[in-house]
Amino acid sequence: MSVAVDAMGADRGPAVVIEGAVQAASEGNIEVILVGREDAVLPQLEKLGNAGGLVTFREATQVVEMGESPSDSLRRKKDSSIRVAFEMVRQGKADAVVSAGNSGATLATAMVVLGRIKGIRPAIAAWMPTLKDPVVMIDVGANVDCKPRHLFQFAVMGSVFWRSITGKETPRIGLLSIGEEDTKGNLQVKKTYDLLESSTLNFLGNVEGRDVFRGDVDVIVCDGFVGNICLKLSEGLAESVMAMLKSEIESSLLATMGYTLARSAFKRFKKKVDYAEYGGAPLLGIKGVGVICHGRSGAKAIKNAVKMADALIQADLPQQLTHAFSSEPAMAVGGTC
Amino acid sequence: MSVAVDAMGADRGPAVVIEGAVQAASEGNIEVILVGREDAVLPQLEKLGNAGGLVTFREATQVVEMGESPSDSLRRKKDSSIRVAFEMVRQGKADAVVSAGNSGATLATAMVVLGRIKGIRPAIAAWMPTLKDPVVMIDVGANVDCKPRHLFQFAVMGSVFWRSITGKETPRIGLLSIGEEDTKGNLQVKKTYDLLESSTLNFLGNVEGRDVFRGDVDVIVCDGFVGNICLKLSEGLAESVMAMLKSEIESSLLATMGYTLARSAFKRFKKKVDYAEYGGAPLLGIKGVGVICHGRSGAKAIKNAVKMADALIQADLPQQLTHAFSSEPAMAVGGTC
Repeated sequence: MSVAVDAMGADRGPAVVIEGAVQAASEGNIEVILVGREDAVLPQLEKLGNAGGLVTFREATQVVEMGESPSDSLRRKKDSSIRVAFEMVRQGKADAVVSAGNSGATLATAMVVLGRIKGIRPAIAAWMPTLKDPVVMIDVGANVDCKPRHLFQFAVMGSVFWRSITGKETPRIGLLSIGEEDTKGNLQVKKTYDLLESSTLNFLGNVEGRDVFRGDVDVIVCDGFVGNICLKLSEGLAESVMAMLKSEIESSLLATMGYTLARSAFKRFKKKVDYAEYGGAPLLGIKGVGVICHGRSGAKAIKNAVKMADALIQADLPQQLTHAFSSEPAMAVGGTC
Repeated sequence: MSVAVDAMGADRGPAVVIEGAVQAASEGNIEVILVGREDAVLPQLEKLGNAGGLVTFREATQVVEMGESPSDSLRRKKDSSIRVAFEMVRQGKADAVVSAGNSGATLATAMVVLGRIKGIRPAIAAWMPTLKDPVVMIDVGANVDCKPRHLFQFAVMGSVFWRSITGKETPRIGLLSIGEEDTKGNLQVKKTYDLLESSTLNFLGNVEGRDVFRGDVDVIVCDGFVGNICLKLSEGLAESVMAMLKSEIESSLLATMGYTLARSAFKRFKKKVDYAEYGGAPLLGIKGVGVICHGRSGAKAIKNAVKMADALIQADLPQQLTHAFSSEPAMAVGGTC
């Protein structure tokens, strides 16, 4: 079992990616293969050590830049670190890929090199913090124009992912909409509601935007356009709330003194809403395991993403997904809408 | 000039609505007509006083309940407070309606009684707090399945509304999407991008979820399904952030002492993110002025909504909208998509 980590292309450079990968290897006893340019990876690996031989290196001479078009990169950069990492999985030389590089290119490369599970639209899942346990939101950006059958597939995949990570059974599924009643929502969501209701999933009904952070469901289903906006809105709002609060506090000496006393509480809070704690976002529905990290990821986020990839390999995720789809009668019904 | 206030149907009962309406009348020197059941309105009005004769009463014997279907209420309750309020505007006996009752019924009644501006899809606009000045988001729930031409109309209406309230010219328009480049987004958004780019509006391009609270644009355009989810997600997240922070603070004595010192900063912050400060959400694109309030509105939110309605009457909003549409060449282009 080994995780191929794309060492290149992240916003903060290879050093933090390599640091996180080495930490994951030694903390989690995980075999890691760093993929990238020799001059970028080897000196850093030498500095940090290879975690008792757990971390190895595989050269890839090209790098996909952040702004590059995924299709261009697929055509022109056959030896990019992203491409080489997925080829290793295809050839059985690795079992999962973790990348903090160009996420569109990672997605496209996974589709082309590994392929999708038959009939399935791959989707990206992400953890969101709530007042209770974190919730899985799916899709958060792989598909911008979805049909009801795709949203239904996301619900199945989100459930399998949630089970793989938590080890618990029967997650509660919610469908993101604009009212609790089954008559509320756009056409796409209303048809998805019917599919979910006729499935074997533990479907609780619609959830509204304000319920996302209540933690009363385990998996929230939405199309990738809506999900991506929600994910980024939440990140942006949490940051803005802290910034607004900080500027209010700094405007008064008394409040500043108070803040100093309360600092550890703020720190624990920040940890709770920090996406780095959740590592990366798995790409579900492909024939293999892929985890996409935020471009701005630090070492901790990479470390947690590698651990997540390892957990998904252990849980035999692609096999679990195939099994879940085949045992879901509504998949056949959903095929027409 | 007068504002008809639906005194019935709000979550917290007629008393808070009447209190807010009377406050708006006396603070803003605004004529207000309270519409509702005599037994619910008159005793309360007697208690609070009629603001030197500015507040009058008009009876409506029926009430639309929160869970009621808008079409049912239109068919069966010809003498509901919502219906009577809009009829008064149609008959020239009032100039605007404010309601904190069933918002679907308010929307439907406005459409049926006042009608829409020709060729236009009415939409609901809402203020969102940002790190800088508040931003207008439109649509936040009137339309769940929109075409690009509708999103373009929302941009025109949002601009006119922003100008009416701020008194400033040429708002900066952003289109809510999942990336800054014009190639990012779903089909609906990509076509809207082209319409906005060929218009006379001050269109800055796409904004992502994380940019909503940055305050770098003045009007954010989206379809009502996405907008409603974003609005409620923001309310829910701001509440959850405060709750999480509070529970972290209460878990330590030192932090609790600190919080006590910083309390006034927290209060100012709460005020900044409190939707009550922004009053209500205007319904734009109808032949008249209508302001929809949160069902949970307190007296302050009602007061601010009445003041907003008065400002929109003063600005002659429906006339401004008609003018803006007629002087926008892209309206003709957009008619086909």
